[in-house]
Amino acid sequence: MNKKKGFANRKTQAQPAHSEKLRSSEPIAKQSWKPGNVLAPVPVVLVSCGGAGEFRPNIITISWTGTVCSDPPMLSISVRPERYSHQIIMTSGEFAVNLPSLAQTRITDWCGVVSGSQFDKFAETGLTAVPASRISCPIIMECPVNIECRVTQRLELGSHHLFLAEVVAVQVSAFLIDDKGKFRIDQAGLIAYGLGHYYPLGPAIDHFGFSIRK
Amino acid sequence: MNKKKGFANRKTQAQPAHSEKLRSSEPIAKQSWKPGNVLAPVPVVLVSCGGAGEFRPNIITISWTGTVCSDPPMLSISVRPERYSHQIIMTSGEFAVNLPSLAQTRITDWCGVVSGSQFDKFAETGLTAVPASRISCPIIMECPVNIECRVTQRLELGSHHLFLAEVVAVQVSAFLIDDKGKFRIDQAGLIAYGLGHYYPLGPAIDHFGFSIRK
Repeated sequence: MNKKKGFANRKTQAQPAHSEKLRSSEPIAKQSWKPGNVLAPVPVVLVSCGGAGEFRPNIITISWTGTVCSDPPMLSISVRPERYSHQIIMTSGEFAVNLPSLAQTRITDWCGVVSGSQFDKFAETGLTAVPASRISCPIIMECPVNIECRVTQRLELGSHHLFLAEVVAVQVSAFLIDDKGKFRIDQAGLIAYGLGHYYPLGPAIDHFGFSIRK
Repeated sequence: MNKKKGFANRKTQAQPAHSEKLRSSEPIAKQSWKPGNVLAPVPVVLVSCGGAGEFRPNIITISWTGTVCSDPPMLSISVRPERYSHQIIMTSGEFAVNLPSLAQTRITDWCGVVSGSQFDKFAETGLTAVPASRISCPIIMECPVNIECRVTQRLELGSHHLFLAEVVAVQVSAFLIDDKGKFRIDQAGLIAYGLGHYYPLGPAIDHFGFSIRK
């Protein structure tokens, strides 16, 4: 049963990053950089919070986020403690991760550079706060995917505090569900972030598991 | 000093995700999904580990990863405890995050669907293990960016264990540094992952802070 075919026996061989520039046997020179945050691409999301008690609904743009567990479904967001949203999320223990589309890139950037203590970001951007299904803070209607989260743990790492959270509900824009009931995330115009720039996604290359497809 | 201009006064207004399909005043219908991991796009990286003691150098593909702190620079990876790499990283407390290029998509997929207990993934893929600068496990020469990490904490979340790690060194392929010493990450051909598919990045949209550019 362990007679799986290795990669070497498959049709495609390893290629260096820029095969046109390199013979495969040629060493690739490396340059050492000081330790830094160069993981890329990373997500860039609009986190909505507030809307209860003393806090009006707020939005903070976050790229220090990722999926951390499949079962239960969990994600994390990292927030500087001096950010206005930090105290909101500390107080409520809830937030929503809203995935922006290409058309919302400018809004996404703006919500990352100004503070909710100075601006009503929903009013300024024209984004619409609509009620979530399982948490008390709103989701953003115009974003194609809304992930409702409940904080399970907070870790003070340094400049940022890591909020670990369980995904308790997901909403997707109905017009992105095709006739077969499939969510066409490729039609959502999602964007990514990396080393100071925003990027659109190109057309899908292939699906998970394609390398062992018969 | 708080006289920052709001978003509404700037030239671009909020647009719904697919403005061509919607009048801005029209509500966008949502469909509720069961809680799941729909954060996208997320990174997809080759994590190298092993190469010391009883463990040969190994590679595991990981998408449950993200930056978690700016200072100190930290990232996280989530690994199922039954994965071969889990025990390696548990033992060594070290790993490297290697960012694959478009040309390595098939290798990236393959390293995610087979086990290092059955295959020597470096030998099979033809990828080259070269010594890291500050950790004992190798980095992958063909990947344009190599992030050397040391584990600081492990959290058992459920299906996955979260390894929090400090970035202790970064290597980048020298041919991606331009004449001005700038790292051209846009030339690295990085890929992203989301809901079962791999995606290339398109050309950069704009830089962080562009929404308040004078």
